[in-house]
Amino acid sequence: MPLKPEIPKPESEVKRVGYAIVGLGKLSAEELIPAARTSEHAYVAALVTSEEDKGEAFARAFDLTENDVYTYDEFEKLAERDDVEAVYIVLPNSMHREYVERAAKIGKHVLCEKPLSLNAEDAQAMVDACREADVLLMTAYRCQYTPEHWAARDAVQSGKLGTIRVIDSIHAHVEDDPEAWRLKMALAGGGPLPDIGLYSLNIIRFVLGEEPQWVFADLHQPEGDERFGEVEERVSWTMGFSGGVVAHCLTSYAAQSTSTLRVLGEKGSVLMDPAFDYQGLKLTIEDSEGKFQPSFPAYDQFGNEFDHFAQCIREGKTPWTPGEEGVADHVVMDAIYESARTGKRVELKPVKKKDASRGEKKPEMPGEGA
Amino acid sequence: MPLKPEIPKPESEVKRVGYAIVGLGKLSAEELIPAARTSEHAYVAALVTSEEDKGEAFARAFDLTENDVYTYDEFEKLAERDDVEAVYIVLPNSMHREYVERAAKIGKHVLCEKPLSLNAEDAQAMVDACREADVLLMTAYRCQYTPEHWAARDAVQSGKLGTIRVIDSIHAHVEDDPEAWRLKMALAGGGPLPDIGLYSLNIIRFVLGEEPQWVFADLHQPEGDERFGEVEERVSWTMGFSGGVVAHCLTSYAAQSTSTLRVLGEKGSVLMDPAFDYQGLKLTIEDSEGKFQPSFPAYDQFGNEFDHFAQCIREGKTPWTPGEEGVADHVVMDAIYESARTGKRVELKPVKKKDASRGEKKPEMPGEGA
Amino acid sequence: MPLKPEIPKPESEVKRVGYAIVGLGKLSAEELIPAARTSEHAYVAALVTSEEDKGEAFARAFDLTENDVYTYDEFEKLAERDDVEAVYIVLPNSMHREYVERAAKIGKHVLCEKPLSLNAEDAQAMVDACREADVLLMTAYRCQYTPEHWAARDAVQSGKLGTIRVIDSIHAHVEDDPEAWRLKMALAGGGPLPDIGLYSLNIIRFVLGEEPQWVFADLHQPEGDERFGEVEERVSWTMGFSGGVVAHCLTSYAAQSTSTLRVLGEKGSVLMDPAFDYQGLKLTIEDSEGKFQPSFPAYDQFGNEFDHFAQCIREGKTPWTPGEEGVADHVVMDAIYESARTGKRVELKPVKKKDASRGEKKPEMPGEGA
Amino acid sequence: MPLKPEIPKPESEVKRVGYAIVGLGKLSAEELIPAARTSEHAYVAALVTSEEDKGEAFARAFDLTENDVYTYDEFEKLAERDDVEAVYIVLPNSMHREYVERAAKIGKHVLCEKPLSLNAEDAQAMVDACREADVLLMTAYRCQYTPEHWAARDAVQSGKLGTIRVIDSIHAHVEDDPEAWRLKMALAGGGPLPDIGLYSLNIIRFVLGEEPQWVFADLHQPEGDERFGEVEERVSWTMGFSGGVVAHCLTSYAAQSTSTLRVLGEKGSVLMDPAFDYQGLKLTIEDSEGKFQPSFPAYDQFGNEFDHFAQCIREGKTPWTPGEEGVADHVVMDAIYESARTGKRVELKPVKKKDASRGEKKPEMPGEGA
Repeated sequence: MPLKPEIPKPESEVKRVGYAIVGLGKLSAEELIPAARTSEHAYVAALVTSEEDKGEAFARAFDLTENDVYTYDEFEKLAERDDVEAVYIVLPNSMHREYVERAAKIGKHVLCEKPLSLNAEDAQAMVDACREADVLLMTAYRCQYTPEHWAARDAVQSGKLGTIRVIDSIHAHVEDDPEAWRLKMALAGGGPLPDIGLYSLNIIRFVLGEEPQWVFADLHQPEGDERFGEVEERVSWTMGFSGGVVAHCLTSYAAQSTSTLRVLGEKGSVLMDPAFDYQGLKLTIEDSEGKFQPSFPAYDQFGNEFDHFAQCIREGKTPWTPGEEGVADHVVMDAIYESARTGKRVELKPVKKKDASRGEKKPEMPGEGA
Repeated sequence: MPLKPEIPKPESEVKRVGYAIVGLGKLSAEELIPAARTSEHAYVAALVTSEEDKGEAFARAFDLTENDVYTYDEFEKLAERDDVEAVYIVLPNSMHREYVERAAKIGKHVLCEKPLSLNAEDAQAMVDACREADVLLMTAYRCQYTPEHWAARDAVQSGKLGTIRVIDSIHAHVEDDPEAWRLKMALAGGGPLPDIGLYSLNIIRFVLGEEPQWVFADLHQPEGDERFGEVEERVSWTMGFSGGVVAHCLTSYAAQSTSTLRVLGEKGSVLMDPAFDYQGLKLTIEDSEGKFQPSFPAYDQFGNEFDHFAQCIREGKTPWTPGEEGVADHVVMDAIYESARTGKRVELKPVKKKDASRGEKKPEMPGEGA
Repeated sequence: MPLKPEIPKPESEVKRVGYAIVGLGKLSAEELIPAARTSEHAYVAALVTSEEDKGEAFARAFDLTENDVYTYDEFEKLAERDDVEAVYIVLPNSMHREYVERAAKIGKHVLCEKPLSLNAEDAQAMVDACREADVLLMTAYRCQYTPEHWAARDAVQSGKLGTIRVIDSIHAHVEDDPEAWRLKMALAGGGPLPDIGLYSLNIIRFVLGEEPQWVFADLHQPEGDERFGEVEERVSWTMGFSGGVVAHCLTSYAAQSTSTLRVLGEKGSVLMDPAFDYQGLKLTIEDSEGKFQPSFPAYDQFGNEFDHFAQCIREGKTPWTPGEEGVADHVVMDAIYESARTGKRVELKPVKKKDASRGEKKPEMPGEGA
Repeated sequence: MPLKPEIPKPESEVKRVGYAIVGLGKLSAEELIPAARTSEHAYVAALVTSEEDKGEAFARAFDLTENDVYTYDEFEKLAERDDVEAVYIVLPNSMHREYVERAAKIGKHVLCEKPLSLNAEDAQAMVDACREADVLLMTAYRCQYTPEHWAARDAVQSGKLGTIRVIDSIHAHVEDDPEAWRLKMALAGGGPLPDIGLYSLNIIRFVLGEEPQWVFADLHQPEGDERFGEVEERVSWTMGFSGGVVAHCLTSYAAQSTSTLRVLGEKGSVLMDPAFDYQGLKLTIEDSEGKFQPSFPAYDQFGNEFDHFAQCIREGKTPWTPGEEGVADHVVMDAIYESARTGKRVELKPVKKKDASRGEKKPEMPGEGA
């Protein structure tokens, strides 16, 4: 992420969409704010944080003033800021609902980190709140905004791999700090499943354009490991899709860093390894002609999200991954936890429509579009 | 497999163990018989086949005479051949039991192709028959006789990968010919599971040295595909092991050729890809120091099996993969099919002992031993 | 190389071309004779060797009789064998000229191992002898008969890599045995250059379809290493081609096994690694779209050579790599040794014509042709 | 390069070394200044640029004031800045000598980008000027400050690869803009050789710890390509080292991006690919045991340079890559250009001492040291 001084942009700031970043954790500091600096359609106009010092340091570093920094109590003051058209919620999962609803109330569009909420019910309430307030809601699924994942989807849906048979995905890493909020049930709502396993779930649904028909799951919470007193260490789950397609997923907070996606068809395959990293995604499409690793222009996943949502705001269009897309994943995750609890396969309500929970605006890929 | 003329061996033929190969299919022709030619402790002394012409062509090509070729009806005549100490059963699965029992009756040691039989009950009967007849029985699990799989096992069991968390394996290829015996239930006893999925099952059990505690499975038999009128196209299954270790396996007869094994621990991983091929196995062991792909001297998987069993015969020792090892896999496969049929998780009888179904003689790896 | 019994071929043996293999070393035993067994257009009809026992063992193993085995003194008796239409010379380099000329005299077509001879003068004499005798002469450059090398050539010549700029190739391995004939100047005529470095030279000329304009070379013959008392351990050389294309080549008999070829153009590249092995060649073609590793049907390099020359004999056409192709490499090798001796760049006689030393018949690739 | 707000460092700024960055091009903006922000021992205290606006934008973005920005005319005013202990020269090559000498005159230590100068004579003058002024001079060879390159050197020098035989390196990319200063002889002093080919040269010298004994070179300057009216498009060169070790190098401004280094010994090899990139270096060490890709903690090449030179200043020690190391490369590059001009091999003055031009302070690798 090269750091550049503010170079005049083709679009003036009047036209670019100003975001308030809500929450100044590692993701905001290391990825989101730098990404916003390179964005064509968006910029950071305000910061919301409980740590005043940190906020001011960031403000200074990013050409904002002390007046652009707000505490959580002052959140509603953003209503007065016409230049803040959207808020980006980067808080612990359990706070997503409250802040999305507060944002909706003051008429701001909302980009919310994944998982959208703690469960399908809360997630649906957030969708409803935004609809009522007539603001857009987007779930920040960065992997639906990369050329690699779109190329994987295209290969799968084009038929060139033949009939799709099986899918396999792993997303794991080691969470070392027992005090991390991600390991607290009240804040995170679960362990690796809603945090990193969600990528496997979300991208398999995206690549197929379909919803699973059933799930079977198992989870592990090792006794005596202080990290896993509240949340699971590992979830493994199986999803059945139409046509006998089956997907295996593994996610863990205590296994070597791994992120893979493999789709096997009768005539070919797609392999991504790594599949969900911020950078360096490696895609191989194989068929009877050989193996192909496509190249794409450089991009920033977070920058792509900023831009897509900003364009949706300008054009008044539903984003590709709206709140409904977040709800759809929570429906499946609720079923995964239920299966793990009962030891039984759980059937899901049939969804016939393709891409049923996705919006009308397709993301522009680098090199495409305006 | 370079073809060499008969070069005098250090051991005279009197001491080498003569095998009768029972069944002259593709595996015998392309792998087993050439492998035997390079074996240090074994040689092919006789052939049993229903196709006289084929048998004689083979005999000529391998320095045997017409007198060394038998029909299935003449099988018992092998009793008169003192130089035939062992038979290698390379017949369709449903014929394994009959020929193992016939071999036992005439006092020949038996090396039997995997799967050992059609189900655990038949497999156990074969073990019992050989025990009663006081002949050795070995299940031909070639992947337990390679340095790569042993290095994978050593990495997993040494603790250097940290606590083992999850395992993932795929074995698939495309079976094109609807008339193949492997697609006939009466001959094969199942589809890809007992044929190729068995490698995933067997090697996961081998690498951990443990038996699964439960399984959940799902299978797919596509309507209208003439290949899968009798057997399944795909099986996916999950196995739970002690300590919360979980293994995901996928096998298909209608998906791109794939053979992988991945074991993730908290501090490292083992990846084999390809994992189950005859040649070119690629093993990567990764930990915090880096990635390591060990090199091994050249070997032949089938030659290793011939040699191991020959040495067991000479030394009067139980082979590393005796009939019991074949039974153990059938127990799990029976449970997999039951789970797929009922949609329910199936609990297995606890087995506490490590390597409970394996023999006392460990395979010598290339470069080791006498 | 699976070993198969003699399965009836579409072409009857009357039509297939019978070869006499002259020389029963490792290459004949492990590669050539097994390859001939799988050939569609060729078969082994006779053997010429000084070791009677070895010849008879081979004969037995390959369905020949004692009458098909000849000593070198008896070479001219092959004249009486109408079924022997071609001889394949697999002798130490210094014997190539004599046996090619003897073969020509008795009217047999000649396939001769590379290098064709010891130097350009001898090589040209062999070409002349065959022309006078009206027999075909082919230099056995197996790498000009693989789909990978043709795909590399096509990528380079198609323009899709942009203007070609630089080429880099290495071919090395460790020669351990100080007594090997390859280390005797009188037999080999040089060290790694004519043996393995020749692949780099030959394939660079093939891929470009052009002849070098100048060479610069350096060689190393380490003192005190008994292996290199007569021949060089290592040759490094640079070749200049038209348009400023330059190629770097390294070859050694005392360096880790390596075989690579890299061609860099302004818009893309070709990488082969390994580039010259009998099996498992890996080709990557890269351009702005991505990286592509094409797949090809299985084939045998030696089988392809047998077939190509057999077809040339049947059709009366010049093979793709005739004697002239061998001469062309000797011209360059002579210049390489001269440069290494003088420390000076050596200019070569300009050759304008594309593929000037290649024949009219292009090899058929697997999957193509009749 | 994650962007972080100014987090209090263990060392106070009083002890950290303040640098003035001289020249605000792409390298300064995208690599050096961000790297300095993460440095433990160094920080950016001032900027020197001809573009006032750009300087002030940078100053704002990096927590400096307008008073910290100087024009080139004001360079000598840095003398008054006690907090500026070192200057980092990031100007076109032809300006290095002037600014190093001006820095020495005002008593500032100098870190100078590579190549140190335009030729060995100018480079030596810079070394002399710094010695007389009693300031330290370091050539910014970032690849001598990475754990990967040190591990490569250790593997080569430890003897575990056996006797080293041959080395091969390529560094190329496409320079598109005919107006780039790198394509102007007066500014750059050459084409790809002093810019990117220099990495091959410098790292081969580093890995061996030796100086070449002779060189042979060829260069290409295509007619009609406006980019190469002044400087060469491509240089290929061969270097001879003691013991018959030979190195082949290729560098081009008009070939697909490539950066490789391969060292072949009799018992093993080192391969780096990419070998010279800012990030993502991939090192493979291979011997008879297998292939090993070591892992290292995250680091920043430019940050490592800043820290090393800062530590040298604090400890009064010669840096690992002092001015003399830059001179040594110019000596070889002068010979390369001479050889290319004359078409003749050029002998170099023997240098017996190991690491003759390197300083006493070895770089600390990430994870090591204080």
